[in-house]
Amino acid sequence: MRTSELTTPALLVDASRLEANLATMAEALPGARLRPHVKAHKCTALAARQSAHGHRTFTCATTAEMEGMVRAGLGDDLLLANEVADASRLGALAGQGARVTLAVDSEATVDEAARARVPEVLIDVDVGLPRCGCRPDDAGRLAERARAAGLQVRGVMGYEGHIVGLEDRATRETMLAESMALLLRAGEDVGGDVISAGGTGTYDINTWATEIQAGSYVLMDTAYAKLGLPFVHALSVLATVISVSKGWAVADCGVKALGMDHGNPSVDGSEVWFCSDEHLTFVPGSPLHVGDRINVLPAHIDPTIAYHERLHVVDGEDVVERWAVDLRGW
Amino acid sequence: MRTSELTTPALLVDASRLEANLATMAEALPGARLRPHVKAHKCTALAARQSAHGHRTFTCATTAEMEGMVRAGLGDDLLLANEVADASRLGALAGQGARVTLAVDSEATVDEAARARVPEVLIDVDVGLPRCGCRPDDAGRLAERARAAGLQVRGVMGYEGHIVGLEDRATRETMLAESMALLLRAGEDVGGDVISAGGTGTYDINTWATEIQAGSYVLMDTAYAKLGLPFVHALSVLATVISVSKGWAVADCGVKALGMDHGNPSVDGSEVWFCSDEHLTFVPGSPLHVGDRINVLPAHIDPTIAYHERLHVVDGEDVVERWAVDLRGW
Repeated sequence: MRTSELTTPALLVDASRLEANLATMAEALPGARLRPHVKAHKCTALAARQSAHGHRTFTCATTAEMEGMVRAGLGDDLLLANEVADASRLGALAGQGARVTLAVDSEATVDEAARARVPEVLIDVDVGLPRCGCRPDDAGRLAERARAAGLQVRGVMGYEGHIVGLEDRATRETMLAESMALLLRAGEDVGGDVISAGGTGTYDINTWATEIQAGSYVLMDTAYAKLGLPFVHALSVLATVISVSKGWAVADCGVKALGMDHGNPSVDGSEVWFCSDEHLTFVPGSPLHVGDRINVLPAHIDPTIAYHERLHVVDGEDVVERWAVDLRGW
Repeated sequence: MRTSELTTPALLVDASRLEANLATMAEALPGARLRPHVKAHKCTALAARQSAHGHRTFTCATTAEMEGMVRAGLGDDLLLANEVADASRLGALAGQGARVTLAVDSEATVDEAARARVPEVLIDVDVGLPRCGCRPDDAGRLAERARAAGLQVRGVMGYEGHIVGLEDRATRETMLAESMALLLRAGEDVGGDVISAGGTGTYDINTWATEIQAGSYVLMDTAYAKLGLPFVHALSVLATVISVSKGWAVADCGVKALGMDHGNPSVDGSEVWFCSDEHLTFVPGSPLHVGDRINVLPAHIDPTIAYHERLHVVDGEDVVERWAVDLRGW
């Protein structure tokens, strides 16, 4: 099949650019030094490509992602890097033989992990992003409670989400050192051999963590492209021009085909005005006609991909594979 | 089933509030005076409720919505209020006996409608929103071309999308009069008996259109709630508190469960700080604990619902129906 035959909007993954990103990362963080975050792509076929590059440990954000990875035979060592109030389905996965590790940050989540027979946990530590994670001073106490309840405590995690997107590298480095000092101190109190942290924006400067939870590197988006990283855009949304007016054009790629929390998407050589439910209004850099195809670069790949049923892997104009976005939902 | 048993995040539709919105609108715009826009909810079960209230004509934004409505037996009179570069699937629907009308705004889209044997069209006119729609002066010429190609031209449409969300009613009225003057002038050139326009924000002041394309009224969101309309919030996202820190809490409802193009969602009595992929960080109005449930009100229902597989219709704590969001995709 050719891309010209696809119904639009459609997600395209450039096969060689994907491969370049996979290879670049596997060289920088080989094997278990990277724990790829599947939330970015929600696609077990893509996770299998990461596995083929040597990464057999994965990070998930939802219970459904954990279940899907086990179904796909990728359950060697799965971390749910998030708290859950009900861990029953995770306990069931562990009971089926998958290696399941769960983030905990409170007495309630420790007790729930024990109740649901989730065998292993990481103590999640607040390293500066106001979200989940216990205070560093509380980490040791939670680890004791977890061990007393029969849980294996593998170590700590702490996501520097307030830092990964900062455009200035020196600022990222300075703030990261402060964040990781908090995590290392908590890690000493907790014990274990895992210090899990990081993201695409800090993959090469977070030298404190034993494993990096990067996800976006594999496909990239315009937000991360501002950071000067060695990863290239491998994902775009193919769209069709449906209307051309004096001064602007409209393509069939709106806010139900694009995550909008990081703002408008980009179209090379064009000025994007705004997105509606099923429309992208833009000023094209050169004349366009109804039926022409354009490539739209999302500002944030994670919520973009979550809208779509499949990724189309392309080599030029040829669609060489179709991958289900099979980790959606909860 | 009780709402407490639902996996979160989960869309809830309050049955009595939905019914109130349906009744209020059916009284204001009975029967074909309303052409409900299914893009808001993407759910044929909900469209069937609108049909039960007397509305048998519907508006769609995508070809997939058109196909789904026909499959559900709701194909009496379907308008695709959008341009398409390839109308083949619409022609096939018409060939199966559905009444299919398509918006056209250019020679290319007129010719494509004729080629694909879509029997009826509306001339889409630009009434001030820089998106689709021909210039008012071009409408008559396009109608001639359509008729010459054997198409039935039912009239005109012109969506005042730049007006429907304005909070000041007087401003809406003034700008609407100007917009509709453009549409009526084009309508005179075009002929036919349909003047299709409007949305939830202008449903009661657009007295020029013969039919109103409102969609959001049925479930409402925080953006439209600012307009002082007689419709009530009937949709929320049920979420679970997964982490509580000194000063904030986190629930499992992030940007993959919420359309973010209109900004952050709201939580009654709480201050929302920000959303991440699977997290909502907020300052609760009263103490919360891990496992507590909260109701999150989306800023924009359309792209919110498009992330979810189903709507749960609730009467208090009871889940009385589950409706598939079966009009997703393209």
